[in-house]
Amino acid sequence: MRYEELTIEGRNAVIEAFRSGKPIDKLFVLDGCQDGPVRTIVREAKKHDTIINYVAKERLDQLSETGKHQGVIAYAAAYEYAEVEDILALAKEKGEPPFIFLLDNIEDPHNLGAIIRTANLAGAHGVIIPKRRAVGLTATVAKTSAGALNYTPVAKVTNLSKTIEELKEKGLWFVCADMGGETMYRLNLKGPIGLVIGNEGEGVSRLVKEKCDYIASIPMKGDIDSLNASVAAGVLAYEIVRQRMS
Amino acid sequence: MRYEELTIEGRNAVIEAFRSGKPIDKLFVLDGCQDGPVRTIVREAKKHDTIINYVAKERLDQLSETGKHQGVIAYAAAYEYAEVEDILALAKEKGEPPFIFLLDNIEDPHNLGAIIRTANLAGAHGVIIPKRRAVGLTATVAKTSAGALNYTPVAKVTNLSKTIEELKEKGLWFVCADMGGETMYRLNLKGPIGLVIGNEGEGVSRLVKEKCDYIASIPMKGDIDSLNASVAAGVLAYEIVRQRMS
Repeated sequence: MRYEELTIEGRNAVIEAFRSGKPIDKLFVLDGCQDGPVRTIVREAKKHDTIINYVAKERLDQLSETGKHQGVIAYAAAYEYAEVEDILALAKEKGEPPFIFLLDNIEDPHNLGAIIRTANLAGAHGVIIPKRRAVGLTATVAKTSAGALNYTPVAKVTNLSKTIEELKEKGLWFVCADMGGETMYRLNLKGPIGLVIGNEGEGVSRLVKEKCDYIASIPMKGDIDSLNASVAAGVLAYEIVRQRMS
Repeated sequence: MRYEELTIEGRNAVIEAFRSGKPIDKLFVLDGCQDGPVRTIVREAKKHDTIINYVAKERLDQLSETGKHQGVIAYAAAYEYAEVEDILALAKEKGEPPFIFLLDNIEDPHNLGAIIRTANLAGAHGVIIPKRRAVGLTATVAKTSAGALNYTPVAKVTNLSKTIEELKEKGLWFVCADMGGETMYRLNLKGPIGLVIGNEGEGVSRLVKEKCDYIASIPMKGDIDSLNASVAAGVLAYEIVRQRMS
């Protein structure tokens, strides 16, 4: 496994990274900087749907490891992203109905890593994460996944709701984890399925929830609000495993 | 919730902490230091079964926040520990068969916090952890538990195997999570139960495993070895919840 965090600093290095097709998760650009090379970088970033953060010089100095950022710092993913098609192909190859995790803005890299680990062991065919606001495949995620990133494809999409619609046309149906839904044990969770896990604090966003066929609730018998996001993902994933086995 | 990490430094402060009954998780003593007050502290620590670490001056200097450790630094638990009896009393009060988590040397405070959170929401009556080698109720654990530490009692015992034996006499039976056991869906997990979760790397220790009535396995359909400890605890706990509900 490759654990290193890839920070790319300086104009030429960043332009080169984009042109070589390296997956860039985030780009930091000096606010107000408008010269040729920086404009080229911003254009490349937009072409690749990379998140661009315009920041002050102090922030860049702070992020910089070399001290020579020239107004641009890019964070490359520690792993290559897959395409949604790759995930469906893997299910087909195994002769199984697709089982996909969709993560609606998981922010904590330890949670993302643990969820990818769970997805692998629960026999899911892949994980889909959104481009905006969520954490990407950083070195911490790779490490917390305990090797699962070498096997379980992770795709990054621009619009999770739109991806759900497209996958529905291919026969998948979607269940999201949230309170106030049907107790998970009572739902039929067999067949081609997408399991949607929400953000640590806010849960599943309204637009995504509206696209889901069912809301599954984990029985809560205690005094506090909710399980840790990666634990909730594990509990729901294994209810799907149980139903698929029976 | 109280989140602060309690570091107690200096001879008088540490002696006072022991005498006032404050729960001390760990004690660091300057190696070779044998004078009266330090001997008193070591005696108190042994009386309270506190782990004692004899370390070099450099280590103490490094750990010290005040720079005035006088050869002793104690770490107090951020929360009070309960007794095993308190856990059984809580089950009785609720009129439920006891459901207890036993953690065989969980080392990562984030895992311990997430497991206490899960124990609360799965309706368990308490968590038992060993005194040696495992992480205690630090501020990180309290924070990760998301408030569960305010409701779910955590007891600390000297010998987990012995505690299991004592609880068996009270009618509990024990299931531990490990590979090579019976698939959890096929076990009868109803009734008064202790769920044993092993260390992150090594799993459940041999002595503890031998005391367990059953070994429950989570089906592993992937390419890697094992789930994250807190996810595994969640998956097993909710299989118990499912069986108790049906």
